[in-house]
Amino acid sequence: MSQFVQSIIYENGTVTILDQTRLPEEERYEVIQDLAQAIDAIKQLRVRGAPAISLFGGFVLVQEAFRRTTGPLDAVKQELLTVSAQLLATRPTAVNLRNVLDELNQLIVSATTLAELPKRLEQKAVALYEADAKTSRQIGVHALELFQAGDRLLTICNAGSIATAAYGTALAPFYLAKEQGIPLSVYASETRPLLQGARLTTWELQRAGIDVTLITDNMVAHTIKEKNITAIIVGADRITRNGDTANKIGTFQLALLARAFGIPFYVAAPLSTFDWTSLSGDEIEIEERAATEVTQFAGQVTAPAGVPVFNPAFDVTPHTLITAIITELGVIEHPSVETIEQTLGLNTI
Amino acid sequence: MSQFVQSIIYENGTVTILDQTRLPEEERYEVIQDLAQAIDAIKQLRVRGAPAISLFGGFVLVQEAFRRTTGPLDAVKQELLTVSAQLLATRPTAVNLRNVLDELNQLIVSATTLAELPKRLEQKAVALYEADAKTSRQIGVHALELFQAGDRLLTICNAGSIATAAYGTALAPFYLAKEQGIPLSVYASETRPLLQGARLTTWELQRAGIDVTLITDNMVAHTIKEKNITAIIVGADRITRNGDTANKIGTFQLALLARAFGIPFYVAAPLSTFDWTSLSGDEIEIEERAATEVTQFAGQVTAPAGVPVFNPAFDVTPHTLITAIITELGVIEHPSVETIEQTLGLNTI
Repeated sequence: MSQFVQSIIYENGTVTILDQTRLPEEERYEVIQDLAQAIDAIKQLRVRGAPAISLFGGFVLVQEAFRRTTGPLDAVKQELLTVSAQLLATRPTAVNLRNVLDELNQLIVSATTLAELPKRLEQKAVALYEADAKTSRQIGVHALELFQAGDRLLTICNAGSIATAAYGTALAPFYLAKEQGIPLSVYASETRPLLQGARLTTWELQRAGIDVTLITDNMVAHTIKEKNITAIIVGADRITRNGDTANKIGTFQLALLARAFGIPFYVAAPLSTFDWTSLSGDEIEIEERAATEVTQFAGQVTAPAGVPVFNPAFDVTPHTLITAIITELGVIEHPSVETIEQTLGLNTI
Repeated sequence: MSQFVQSIIYENGTVTILDQTRLPEEERYEVIQDLAQAIDAIKQLRVRGAPAISLFGGFVLVQEAFRRTTGPLDAVKQELLTVSAQLLATRPTAVNLRNVLDELNQLIVSATTLAELPKRLEQKAVALYEADAKTSRQIGVHALELFQAGDRLLTICNAGSIATAAYGTALAPFYLAKEQGIPLSVYASETRPLLQGARLTTWELQRAGIDVTLITDNMVAHTIKEKNITAIIVGADRITRNGDTANKIGTFQLALLARAFGIPFYVAAPLSTFDWTSLSGDEIEIEERAATEVTQFAGQVTAPAGVPVFNPAFDVTPHTLITAIITELGVIEHPSVETIEQTLGLNTI
């Protein structure tokens, strides 16, 4: 997997991240010193992408565990569960983090000696990291079955290798296609306000020699028409039991536009993105972020002082607009409670 | 009309503009010294908005005429027609400029003495300017008939008072509503890459005490749903005989989203925006602008060096997606060749 930039590095109890807010100008790595810095890195999106945040959160919990090797077991367990809860509270919409922390929390709760706890957490977190790269690759394999040489795909935000351990989710098929010599073109919607499409998706695809063209978010319909876009593919921050999908703000309108043009709309995500406790998107809490993300850019004022701003970070795409959800286990066409259970059941049993 | 900022001022043979690229931070006026500066002002969008560009182009032609008061009549006529052609070439999509220049060109061609020419052009240009303010107000009157107190409208770019002599086109009903004490809310889509929605629409509406909220262009579908947007209203750069409408990039997808949500999509424009020589939008040339508009902001790099960019400045909304076109003569519902001719015919005869 040497073709991929590592956005999260874990070594000997220390977590290091690639500061994604500095891209594409600078590849700066940041060693995480403490929990406060870790939480700030998530909130400020220096580490981002639903799978990557979950892997990062896991490693941070491991790091904190290695710093608590003495004291009464119950007290340390309680402290670590508090750390876990603080990490979970950083970003309410993405569910992968909750899923990873739940797994680690179980190890904490069931621990019987303090000596073994950090090492057991580490083994789990590393295993989840390694599994994520394989998972992402499998998503790419399944997604690529839906595409043909010469296809022109459109995506939003960054569901790429730096949002995961490797390969990415929505971008995984493009890496697989590149490996196999299949030409595909990608149109990246810049994704305001924080420009993850412009800064990150174009950067990692260009770096990998994959054909990518940048557009702004208001150019989507015109681009679909003028460039004969064949499908839209996006990642996900949370998928509920019926297939409703929370993802970066703008995803919902991409799905509506795909429907209007009669082209497929695909969601690519690992099973860890599924929230089995929620039946529909109505139950998903949408994070709103600071107005200054919209009213300023690089210190430059872009709107009059005090103007009211609506700045939701995510939106929910109803499952009825989703042609298929692509997971590591296969493609779930026409997602619904029934087809999701059926497809995953058929594949997992 | 003192409540409006004047974006174009003509006095005694001199044209002055409000530099719209400096807004909202600075209200800087610029005296136009020569044709090269005038052309640059249009190309760099220091003066912008289809009606405003046309009024500006007219005044620049007047200014050039006042500088050519000696010499053989035929030679001066030829020079002024060349100036007119150079102005026309600045922005290929908007048609109002062509319509104004055509009127002035007729005066040039039919002139029999050089002494009277500048004054005759000035009378015409001033009359067109004064007519534009009345026209815009009438558009507002007709548009307001379509809205109710409490309605929440969404718009893109700036079809406001500074894009016209006064009132604006798509924003005219909000000024009229304010005058009459009718509460309306506006959601302004920021309009990448040059942020006319964020910089200009919020600025002029906030200044007028009109309720306005800023969103980014990828938030439209989510905002329609969450804020119960009741209709979308936009301006136009060119309307063909069948009602197909070229306007700021992003307009087309607003129309598709309005259709998806079952809310009306209105185009507000004066008759001078109609291109009676084109039957459909297929005939409209779409201006593409520099990649750096998308890859840089305020000197800050926002995308990797050399990444391909698609940067169309406009798109075409098919008339079938337009609920009504609102002109100074009235509302054209279900625009088509027939309804446009019928409605305008009924009103003009």
